[in-house]
Amino acid sequence: MEQRVSLITMGVSDVARARTFYGALGWAGQTVEGTVFFQAGGMAVVLWSRDRLMADAGIVSTDSDVTPSAAFSGITLAHNVRTEEEVDRILAAAAVSGATVTRPAARTFYGGYAGYFADPDGHLWEIAHNPGFPLGEDGSITVPDLSTPPLTGT
Amino acid sequence: MEQRVSLITMGVSDVARARTFYGALGWAGQTVEGTVFFQAGGMAVVLWSRDRLMADAGIVSTDSDVTPSAAFSGITLAHNVRTEEEVDRILAAAAVSGATVTRPAARTFYGGYAGYFADPDGHLWEIAHNPGFPLGEDGSITVPDLSTPPLTGT
Repeated sequence: MEQRVSLITMGVSDVARARTFYGALGWAGQTVEGTVFFQAGGMAVVLWSRDRLMADAGIVSTDSDVTPSAAFSGITLAHNVRTEEEVDRILAAAAVSGATVTRPAARTFYGGYAGYFADPDGHLWEIAHNPGFPLGEDGSITVPDLSTPPLTGT
Repeated sequence: MEQRVSLITMGVSDVARARTFYGALGWAGQTVEGTVFFQAGGMAVVLWSRDRLMADAGIVSTDSDVTPSAAFSGITLAHNVRTEEEVDRILAAAAVSGATVTRPAARTFYGGYAGYFADPDGHLWEIAHNPGFPLGEDGSITVPDLSTPPLTGT
């Protein structure tokens, strides 16, 4: 696993409110289907529905006294890789090293392949192959122009 | 506020265990006084005692049914700036825009000047001036060689 972070996703209760807050601080992003992407150096900061993020990460509580929401820190880190095989390999290595795979690798709604693990303290990492987000030689990612749908062939 | 993240700090219950976990995934960092710093592209990922991080961020619960620990997501983002004035300016702008300043700006134990705000969803940002961590023209930071103490004058 290369030593880098591709995206920080903050789960929020109201995406429009959160976008307004960061906008007031001078941040400009792109909004697509209720998700806001900010380019931040060689990575991206993302605002997304807290509930959807929690579900995406496969978070369910095994303790009946703890609601799933309370068990979720509200933030995830993503590590984008170049191949689907790398997703499988890193999730397997994390599991062997003490992580819990909270969502096994699978196709994603955005056309990629990804899974999540929780580190020994519960910090969530998404390991993702996302062909739509260019990954540089140095591991930096670039948020593409999201105003046009990706080509789907002719 | 420039559109970038300088550090991601993950609060952990056992720093040695967390360092071993990330080490098993291939990450190499520097450990100083129980804190691990990993260079990750133009930013740093940091492992620190969850309790100390929570205290550093000024997190206390105002709800008697919620322990401070439960009110803390366990992760903070830091935005390093070039001057102390910039720390004050960003914290003030965040407060006006709907953030809660959880720790007013003050001198830090590492010789800097910093404060924290919680965004409208509770995500914590440290705004810091840290002369010990070089900040590039493009906003990237470089974890310095931490094996030698900083010069303190002659």
